[in-house]
Amino acid sequence: MYRKGYCRELDLVNLFWDKGFAALRVAGSGSSSKPLPDIVAGNGKKYLAIEVKYTSKEVLYINFSKIEELIKFSKRFGAEAYIAVKFSHKDWLFLSPKDLKKTRSGNYRIDIDLAMLKGKLFEEIIGEEKQMKLIDDH
Amino acid sequence: MYRKGYCRELDLVNLFWDKGFAALRVAGSGSSSKPLPDIVAGNGKKYLAIEVKYTSKEVLYINFSKIEELIKFSKRFGAEAYIAVKFSHKDWLFLSPKDLKKTRSGNYRIDIDLAMLKGKLFEEIIGEEKQMKLIDDH
Repeated sequence: MYRKGYCRELDLVNLFWDKGFAALRVAGSGSSSKPLPDIVAGNGKKYLAIEVKYTSKEVLYINFSKIEELIKFSKRFGAEAYIAVKFSHKDWLFLSPKDLKKTRSGNYRIDIDLAMLKGKLFEEIIGEEKQMKLIDDH
Repeated sequence: MYRKGYCRELDLVNLFWDKGFAALRVAGSGSSSKPLPDIVAGNGKKYLAIEVKYTSKEVLYINFSKIEELIKFSKRFGAEAYIAVKFSHKDWLFLSPKDLKKTRSGNYRIDIDLAMLKGKLFEEIIGEEKQMKLIDDH
């Protein structure tokens, strides 16, 4: 399980390097007393903090506290916050914390439908996000 | 040795958190195929990439390749590059790669005198660096 998580994170880190970013896995992200994401990437213009989740099933659950930590870190560091989700045989999809739906227990649930509906592709989160800019210009 | 390095890095990471930055230790910084620093810190305005060195002696040696990696990472990520040096009973001092002196073998040597002469204090690397700005305004 540890090994698989490590490989998934490394896979994502390498995608960033291939596109001109510097990216890294954060040491102790699951155990530190500080709010830490799994991955941080930057290219001098754009900085991203990422929580990584993957599953062989069709739904993912994330603890409330993990998302709180991701938001806290991102605000302090000056980064956009994303949850990178990987379902079997699908590409990585990137959700913003505001896209998540709370369960009755106060945690978060992401199924494939939500990920496909709200998730951005890798190219979108590293790109110029032209659609966003058009909206902002109004 | 591993344990001590870990504590030194954590000590520095905590200093950043105390001053409003988010900071992290980089996983696999000594073993990755990618050029990775030991620590990355940011506060939305300032981003720093740091190689950490400490010794109980009066001189430190750093491999040429470690500094090359630090510079490469910093340029890509969009961060200021520093070598944080810690001698016994002294505060952390932060040197820029350009402050370093090469040895005959092509690596780098930092003694206490060089660190005291060229090194900046923690407050200076996170602060507004007013002196630098006055010089830049000419």
